[in-house]
Amino acid sequence: MSPHQELPAVVGVLGAGSWGTTFAKVVADAHPGIQVRLWARRPEVAEEINNRHLNSQYLNDIRLPDNLTASGEVAEVMDGAELVVLAVPAQTLRPQLAALKPLLGDTAVVVSLMKGLERGTDSRMSEVIKEELSLPDSRIAVISGPNLAMEIARKEPTASVVACTDRDVAQWIANTCTARYFRPYTNTDVVGVEIGGIVKNVIALCVGICDGKHMGDNTKASVITRGLAETTRLTLALGGELETMAGLAGLGDLVATCSSPLSRNHTAGRLLGEGLTLDEVNQRMTQTAEGIKSGRAVLDLATQVGVEMPITESVVAVLEGEISVEDLAPRLLTRELKSEGEQEQ
Amino acid sequence: MSPHQELPAVVGVLGAGSWGTTFAKVVADAHPGIQVRLWARRPEVAEEINNRHLNSQYLNDIRLPDNLTASGEVAEVMDGAELVVLAVPAQTLRPQLAALKPLLGDTAVVVSLMKGLERGTDSRMSEVIKEELSLPDSRIAVISGPNLAMEIARKEPTASVVACTDRDVAQWIANTCTARYFRPYTNTDVVGVEIGGIVKNVIALCVGICDGKHMGDNTKASVITRGLAETTRLTLALGGELETMAGLAGLGDLVATCSSPLSRNHTAGRLLGEGLTLDEVNQRMTQTAEGIKSGRAVLDLATQVGVEMPITESVVAVLEGEISVEDLAPRLLTRELKSEGEQEQ
Repeated sequence: MSPHQELPAVVGVLGAGSWGTTFAKVVADAHPGIQVRLWARRPEVAEEINNRHLNSQYLNDIRLPDNLTASGEVAEVMDGAELVVLAVPAQTLRPQLAALKPLLGDTAVVVSLMKGLERGTDSRMSEVIKEELSLPDSRIAVISGPNLAMEIARKEPTASVVACTDRDVAQWIANTCTARYFRPYTNTDVVGVEIGGIVKNVIALCVGICDGKHMGDNTKASVITRGLAETTRLTLALGGELETMAGLAGLGDLVATCSSPLSRNHTAGRLLGEGLTLDEVNQRMTQTAEGIKSGRAVLDLATQVGVEMPITESVVAVLEGEISVEDLAPRLLTRELKSEGEQEQ
Repeated sequence: MSPHQELPAVVGVLGAGSWGTTFAKVVADAHPGIQVRLWARRPEVAEEINNRHLNSQYLNDIRLPDNLTASGEVAEVMDGAELVVLAVPAQTLRPQLAALKPLLGDTAVVVSLMKGLERGTDSRMSEVIKEELSLPDSRIAVISGPNLAMEIARKEPTASVVACTDRDVAQWIANTCTARYFRPYTNTDVVGVEIGGIVKNVIALCVGICDGKHMGDNTKASVITRGLAETTRLTLALGGELETMAGLAGLGDLVATCSSPLSRNHTAGRLLGEGLTLDEVNQRMTQTAEGIKSGRAVLDLATQVGVEMPITESVVAVLEGEISVEDLAPRLLTRELKSEGEQEQ
């Protein structure tokens, strides 16, 4: 019998940013009988959660449920956790896993909420987890979708995707996080779900730049369309599936991220488009715009597998100071949008 | 030798609404040597275009080029036109074609800019043209894409798709309407390009309703994702192509229409979502929200070919007064979004 029939008694969530806190809240709201423990790097955040049921820096005045508690000690959060959810900054994951490894239960499943590639190795988060924790694929899952954290924290109806190569494990996780306002679907395409979540941040930077330059919805829709096409090419080259890209974790996440003023990547792009330097943008943002960090890694990965990603390439050229935001629009129109009608694969 | 090597000397455009006028302007801007003649139903519109180079009701203060003239007489507009562009309301097309037939040149090509299905017959515009004018497929084309007319009229960079079963004819039309700010791509999937342009209006009504009910971007992105999935199912059942749906005339048009405050269908949906009755919405709109007229025909067509279109079905249920906008959201979440992960085809 699989160990993953009954819901976990304890769920540990590492990372008390907006998405980590919100996901912890989803599980706690869904199942008042589950103890949800959230690791916060800063003691004052853990204290506010425990004493006032708030994480005001990220979720304003949204009240967190009583069965969600926080701690600054990883060991406390991990103790007895059958489901371990990781929501730390992508670039800090590897060193954090080393500390986490001896604390992980023998059958515990690790879920990544993170959207990024590790710089230097160009590894997906599930790959870093597999390497550092030496886990089989059946104990590693990812969750992604059109999931603006603040909307979920406000209990606005949201759908998402849980992916694990073991469908039963994916279903077990989905059961654990199905709330009245949060509906997870399952699939087995970990690669597709992760790549969708990563590249959308780079495309959202581009759409944001177009917004900052006051370009219209016709242009932005074309960037989204061609952006999904290049994301799909990369996904297929890495062994992921077309259907995932056409679904909530591909198209859905891309559209939500590119439409919303709540998206950090869209906002960062808009500020670049308005003429701020990259340094100024980084100073202005209180949270990471992951696309800024992952852009180069996405492009490197695409080069390795021989996939052309002209929009990503243009965004990276802007981020690395090779071209100005003024040059981006003509470049997109004359070059990137040329390929309509060609086969996508 | 094909008659369609050199650009046409005369292009006739029937219908002086926002898209007809804008497309006439595109051709006139692209080629000052082409005479572009626009048919306007109302004499005062033709007079304003000829005397003041304006169509102020639809395009505000945007100046129209000198080689674009207007007339209230169909025969004048058709005289010598090698390319005839139709941009009249979808439901009035068939009777208008009867009047046009004796005036059509022997090799003239007819292009539809229209987005709708004929009520009663559930026919696409290209099918109505074929039936009424008895033309071969190689003389019928359609144009569609992320093409909000006002943005194009303002010369904001825009891409589009010209479809004709004869690729050379599609290319000839594309050459005729390639302006500095308007870039048409060609394909041969007339069915896909038309269906994309039709169903997106119905999905945009749904997204508009969600907006009017103040639902978040997570939900709207899910509706767009599942909306494209059901559009794709219909297209494939009618013999169209998956690639078209993933391109500018499918995804691109859908995203532009669902994002923009300029979209009539999105606006009509929003007003419904805010609690106005259908009659009140129709009174409030100065131009047709085609999705309101086509919704039932789309659903009938889907039923005929055995395709499920749950979002379209829900929108039609709202339009026909079967369910309230309050009932739409729960219905979407519990039913329509269930199918993620199923095969799309």
